[in-house]
Amino acid sequence: MIIKIEPQSDIPIYTQLTNQIIEGIAKGEIQAGESLPSVRSFAADLGVNMHTVNKSYHQLEAKGIIKIIPKSGAVISSPTQSIDTVSQRMSGALRSIIAEALVSGLEREQIQELVSSIMNDLNKKE
Amino acid sequence: MIIKIEPQSDIPIYTQLTNQIIEGIAKGEIQAGESLPSVRSFAADLGVNMHTVNKSYHQLEAKGIIKIIPKSGAVISSPTQSIDTVSQRMSGALRSIIAEALVSGLEREQIQELVSSIMNDLNKKE
Repeated sequence: MIIKIEPQSDIPIYTQLTNQIIEGIAKGEIQAGESLPSVRSFAADLGVNMHTVNKSYHQLEAKGIIKIIPKSGAVISSPTQSIDTVSQRMSGALRSIIAEALVSGLEREQIQELVSSIMNDLNKKE
Repeated sequence: MIIKIEPQSDIPIYTQLTNQIIEGIAKGEIQAGESLPSVRSFAADLGVNMHTVNKSYHQLEAKGIIKIIPKSGAVISSPTQSIDTVSQRMSGALRSIIAEALVSGLEREQIQELVSSIMNDLNKKE
């Protein structure tokens, strides 16, 4: 899994890290049961503050994507929430982006195509 | 356009306001050429700080959704960016959410259905 931090981005570094770890899991580069690096070594590798990695791990834990286990560290979880719970959780964030896309002039079909192409890109193995 | 602010939400109030204004435009409740209320009166109506409304208006302006015109106030713009520019702009945010949905156990078809149902809900007139 290659993590690329952009210090100049508007997106906070811990969120960049969270998003890229999630992408790595979506792509199957790291799988349920496997561990993320320790906070200390990940921070050193990425050249970021330990606090930043810690914040990202807690964000991932809050989303139910990892479990922070004493001694084992940050372990990728299998999905445990029901489809309805996940749909509901994702729906608010999706709704804001889709509304903005519509207001910015994208047609429904163009939005569906964009979603498809992102899923293809995230699931190259399929 | 009905704005409902949830002070207890994790989402900052100015972002809640931004998202709901964008939804209002997507739904055709307020249209290009029309003005949003003045910062002062909107803040009073919503019971929020003027700074919050101001921050939301600047966020909407940065997204190209309104123009802040001296004396006229915040006027809804027609979409001006090319489809490619908009697609690219939306794609990063969409990608993070879609990756999270996949990692949380949603199937591709379920994500497409969720996107469709959100678009139906936003475009009830169609």
